[in-house]
Amino acid sequence: MRTVVVTDPPRAGVDDAAALGDHGVATVHEALGRVGYLGPEFRPAWPGARVGGTAVTALCWPGDNLMIHVAVEQCRPGDVLVVATSSPSTDGLFGELFATALARRGVRGVVLASGVRDVAELRAMGFPAWSRAVSAQGSVKATAGAVNVPVVLGGQTVRPGDVVVADDDGVMVVPRTDVDRALTAAQARVDKEAATRAAFEAGELGLDRYGLRGRLDELGVEYVPYEQWVEKGAR
Amino acid sequence: MRTVVVTDPPRAGVDDAAALGDHGVATVHEALGRVGYLGPEFRPAWPGARVGGTAVTALCWPGDNLMIHVAVEQCRPGDVLVVATSSPSTDGLFGELFATALARRGVRGVVLASGVRDVAELRAMGFPAWSRAVSAQGSVKATAGAVNVPVVLGGQTVRPGDVVVADDDGVMVVPRTDVDRALTAAQARVDKEAATRAAFEAGELGLDRYGLRGRLDELGVEYVPYEQWVEKGAR
Amino acid sequence: MRTVVVTDPPRAGVDDAAALGDHGVATVHEALGRVGYLGPEFRPAWPGARVGGTAVTALCWPGDNLMIHVAVEQCRPGDVLVVATSSPSTDGLFGELFATALARRGVRGVVLASGVRDVAELRAMGFPAWSRAVSAQGSVKATAGAVNVPVVLGGQTVRPGDVVVADDDGVMVVPRTDVDRALTAAQARVDKEAATRAAFEAGELGLDRYGLRGRLDELGVEYVPYEQWVEKGAR
Amino acid sequence: MRTVVVTDPPRAGVDDAAALGDHGVATVHEALGRVGYLGPEFRPAWPGARVGGTAVTALCWPGDNLMIHVAVEQCRPGDVLVVATSSPSTDGLFGELFATALARRGVRGVVLASGVRDVAELRAMGFPAWSRAVSAQGSVKATAGAVNVPVVLGGQTVRPGDVVVADDDGVMVVPRTDVDRALTAAQARVDKEAATRAAFEAGELGLDRYGLRGRLDELGVEYVPYEQWVEKGAR
Amino acid sequence: MRTVVVTDPPRAGVDDAAALGDHGVATVHEALGRVGYLGPEFRPAWPGARVGGTAVTALCWPGDNLMIHVAVEQCRPGDVLVVATSSPSTDGLFGELFATALARRGVRGVVLASGVRDVAELRAMGFPAWSRAVSAQGSVKATAGAVNVPVVLGGQTVRPGDVVVADDDGVMVVPRTDVDRALTAAQARVDKEAATRAAFEAGELGLDRYGLRGRLDELGVEYVPYEQWVEKGAR
Amino acid sequence: MRTVVVTDPPRAGVDDAAALGDHGVATVHEALGRVGYLGPEFRPAWPGARVGGTAVTALCWPGDNLMIHVAVEQCRPGDVLVVATSSPSTDGLFGELFATALARRGVRGVVLASGVRDVAELRAMGFPAWSRAVSAQGSVKATAGAVNVPVVLGGQTVRPGDVVVADDDGVMVVPRTDVDRALTAAQARVDKEAATRAAFEAGELGLDRYGLRGRLDELGVEYVPYEQWVEKGAR
Repeated sequence: MRTVVVTDPPRAGVDDAAALGDHGVATVHEALGRVGYLGPEFRPAWPGARVGGTAVTALCWPGDNLMIHVAVEQCRPGDVLVVATSSPSTDGLFGELFATALARRGVRGVVLASGVRDVAELRAMGFPAWSRAVSAQGSVKATAGAVNVPVVLGGQTVRPGDVVVADDDGVMVVPRTDVDRALTAAQARVDKEAATRAAFEAGELGLDRYGLRGRLDELGVEYVPYEQWVEKGAR
Repeated sequence: MRTVVVTDPPRAGVDDAAALGDHGVATVHEALGRVGYLGPEFRPAWPGARVGGTAVTALCWPGDNLMIHVAVEQCRPGDVLVVATSSPSTDGLFGELFATALARRGVRGVVLASGVRDVAELRAMGFPAWSRAVSAQGSVKATAGAVNVPVVLGGQTVRPGDVVVADDDGVMVVPRTDVDRALTAAQARVDKEAATRAAFEAGELGLDRYGLRGRLDELGVEYVPYEQWVEKGAR
Repeated sequence: MRTVVVTDPPRAGVDDAAALGDHGVATVHEALGRVGYLGPEFRPAWPGARVGGTAVTALCWPGDNLMIHVAVEQCRPGDVLVVATSSPSTDGLFGELFATALARRGVRGVVLASGVRDVAELRAMGFPAWSRAVSAQGSVKATAGAVNVPVVLGGQTVRPGDVVVADDDGVMVVPRTDVDRALTAAQARVDKEAATRAAFEAGELGLDRYGLRGRLDELGVEYVPYEQWVEKGAR
Repeated sequence: MRTVVVTDPPRAGVDDAAALGDHGVATVHEALGRVGYLGPEFRPAWPGARVGGTAVTALCWPGDNLMIHVAVEQCRPGDVLVVATSSPSTDGLFGELFATALARRGVRGVVLASGVRDVAELRAMGFPAWSRAVSAQGSVKATAGAVNVPVVLGGQTVRPGDVVVADDDGVMVVPRTDVDRALTAAQARVDKEAATRAAFEAGELGLDRYGLRGRLDELGVEYVPYEQWVEKGAR
Repeated sequence: MRTVVVTDPPRAGVDDAAALGDHGVATVHEALGRVGYLGPEFRPAWPGARVGGTAVTALCWPGDNLMIHVAVEQCRPGDVLVVATSSPSTDGLFGELFATALARRGVRGVVLASGVRDVAELRAMGFPAWSRAVSAQGSVKATAGAVNVPVVLGGQTVRPGDVVVADDDGVMVVPRTDVDRALTAAQARVDKEAATRAAFEAGELGLDRYGLRGRLDELGVEYVPYEQWVEKGAR
Repeated sequence: MRTVVVTDPPRAGVDDAAALGDHGVATVHEALGRVGYLGPEFRPAWPGARVGGTAVTALCWPGDNLMIHVAVEQCRPGDVLVVATSSPSTDGLFGELFATALARRGVRGVVLASGVRDVAELRAMGFPAWSRAVSAQGSVKATAGAVNVPVVLGGQTVRPGDVVVADDDGVMVVPRTDVDRALTAAQARVDKEAATRAAFEAGELGLDRYGLRGRLDELGVEYVPYEQWVEKGAR
């Protein structure tokens, strides 16, 4: 494992990151073409938070949070700290004290491939955290890792300066070079969804709005009244 | 996989379904003889909902929600939409727009073997959803499936028109032909539990109330004071 | 499996147990030297509870809650009931009626290696419960087990009379003979954390406060500006 | 849970069952339209077995094999015993002694939703077994269940008399009423696969054999030389 | 975590351990009263090994095998090395070189709560290993742990000097003080099983041999011919 | 998701890939600095295979193997096909017919994030396959994906032309630009391990060979005879 701290990586704009955060994970994920989602294992420590920020990444040894201490110093206002481990671990590498230090620096939240602790305190502070586990298991500060190198969480590569969006649906990453496209596409999707919502509230069906009836015919989907279906002995 | 949409299946009464919903999952499950529960993997997207409704079923290909669009049209007031996939998947096949369409039709909730998204919006709408995962991962509309055929979720067969009961304890199914028996037995259980609750509040023990002391004797359970136990070198 | 009920085991002091509960899981776990945590699988049935109590233990056959009935009689004010099963099971061995009986006896909460049900009712009662699963699946009363023998949950041995601490971070056990040490060490940790919190709020870094910069040098961690890093072709 | 033993259910032909077994799981699954597979959790206790037989079903309480004893008496030559539990369990409900009794009765194998033990002995005997777990954990004989009722394993309903096919790819069920169709379709698939195999050995591509190039065009799949791809800054 | 190496703990007799190993896990587990099994997660790295030996225990930090090096020195002929980690980890803490060192010292095998690697080499050497995972992920030697303290694996406490039995069914522990009882009971069980096996081969049923028909009556199990069952509309 | 097929990516040398394959996963992983391992979920379909080859990558929709057909055409002698899915899936996207086509093209093996089927046939053919699951569940050819774009499996990024090494310990990736370094470092490690193996066979301890006794002192590890340990009342 490389043992390096990369300093001052270029970041996406923090306002752009916030705007993507306002759109939320599902919208931005769809807008970008259904990419970038970290999967259902990443859950919020408490419900209701929604953030967008620029990634500072840390790669830790399992059971060891030394590199989080290093990463704190690299964090700036508008960042989201993203922590991976070199192998699977649920240990609680992050808690209230780290949250205090990060909040002081204007950091918007944290995403961990491992565990988080002090959940009640994080909720009380309003500091957002997403992780694979809640765990009180403590850590050591013995083994080196890296800060601001590309890391992989939930099958997605997060590079320093990328935008991380997180809410009750989980976490996603927007590559720094895709932020403009993401903003435009997300706004377009919001507009389209507003129209669809209004149509659905008025009783229109998705089958009609999306023109799916022809597709069903092509695929050979048959409509059969229940009585006929039962007569065929279906079970 | 059959590619069929069965229309107008007979349904249990929607008032009966609501009454079973009021009793809740644990009560109806016990009343029916400890059958019908979909297991602990099915969790509510937000806490506090409790529903009973008649099942409309959809069987989807993983990562594909085409048949949910088909199923929406088959839904009536009092229904609960029940979605299975042909193989395991956590993708977020269902979100706010579907909920809008279903709410418009008087549908009481949704149960999915896969994932759900737009959790914050569903909570704000008050639309109840149970699923195996929360996932923002989007879906395509490419592959046919079936609507209103029997489906299996969590080891239980759900047939169209069956009653689905769901609350914070999870989800269960009551076969349409068992609804009358379920209502009677659930009410009996509620009455019995009220008496037991009062007895327990008054200090009676389950050992006495259920007559279990004799059973313990038959099973050879011994009572041993701690000091004797320690002397035997038990560890 | 031994089929024995051990009566009147010595217990840690119930006030000491409450004091450890007030400190919470993460603090006491760290104070004791990072031992005793039952792991991230044990989750609260509802958020916000925090308890400390003395353990009464029960060992049940999977799908069978006979020995919980036996254990209730052994419970006293200040206890926490701790339930293990002889093999893995998620069934809902515990619900509202048991909670009613335990609350009547002054019991502070329950921890189960299996499942819990009646979650909405437990939340309404304010009775705290931690478990590996929420499950409505009911149980029988057919097979003997043991009460107040040592049991293992989540890789930790819990003996009757030990202190169990539980909150939103999960559950931990403090051996009865370690309670005094735990109280002292937990208070020391609280004091130290208060000072650290104030320092972090004032902008001090963990790297400096914990003297970690020397460690990073020893471990060969390099700081590299982003432009140099990119020139090396790192990916 | 019903506590019933259904006797003498009609069975598919044992020779037909054997013929389906010879075709194997993947072939019959495809031939029937990609239905009936119990999923990847069901694994053989030892590699290399391949069977087809008629189902005798047992539904057991977790940790309890009483109903397997009942089911043995219902087994005939050509059967496969299929064991479900009323809630999830990995306990080793089945081992060498049951295998001895079943082999004596001409039973072709066993499928369990729970665990199996005596793996070395089963391999030495050549008695085929598929299960979700290998576990030495023993069981009691205390709680009633059912024999020859429909059971659900791995999301599939198995009815007594259905054909069960199992090999190194896992386990599938063929409804008794679909056996003739399955035999015809499986043979057709075998013939088609033989032709495809020969074509692939001769260097033909699936893209051409299945006419997929047009589909790729419709779906907008582009072919891009690596150098162009890199110039676009793709990552 | 205590950081201690306990030297020269008393051990069960190595010949007794070997004799229990010859009986195998399922037999000894049953003989002792269905206790001591580490559960289905512990699997052999290669099939066919069967050992019994006296435990030397090591407690490691996740991703760190320093204490295995310490434990090697404490091993004697007839021992089995048992490795726990302070929190869940799948990393490959053990491989061919450790196996070489242990084989030189007459150690009979290894059991790890984490992962093992060099599986092909271990099979070629004939060195038995059981673990929760196969993983090539390497480890550091940075953090202290303990040797020859009680450790918990798979819900079972293993103390130094206890007997560990392992085969294709998994792993179990026999407390040192129970070895004599285990030997006697295992032999009795072997004799009883031989008689049962002969009876089953001769066609006797478990229902008769174990006298279960009366139990079924008490439990209210009914025998119903298939035709009657179908008439009742059972599904 | 991009829908692109990148053609003719540069590849590492196929002889270099084979040489890394001969070293095996654990050795190359350590040689590179403990990076690149895909984790313990990737298992061989049959034991004993060991390969090294150059990656051709495919990204599929869950339950859809259309892009594997596309990828076959891009494969050359010495390649290993690497298949990811856009969300988690265990379906059996790959079987005997694909293996026939790949073997004809000189492909050395396949690695899938999803499932594989026809395990018995793959073993008989000697075609190596690694996957997260064995599953007979069949797939459709309906949704586009990509070929020869970077994909993530098991937390590792695999780019086309990288070297993939796989054996009974699992799978790892060596970036194309690191192949020379990997070959040199792997050979150095092999030499070092041979010397260590000889030393261990001669009875030397890792504690001495790696100079760990000083580290233990620094870490405060104490050696305590068993009798003293017991007197302290340790449990």
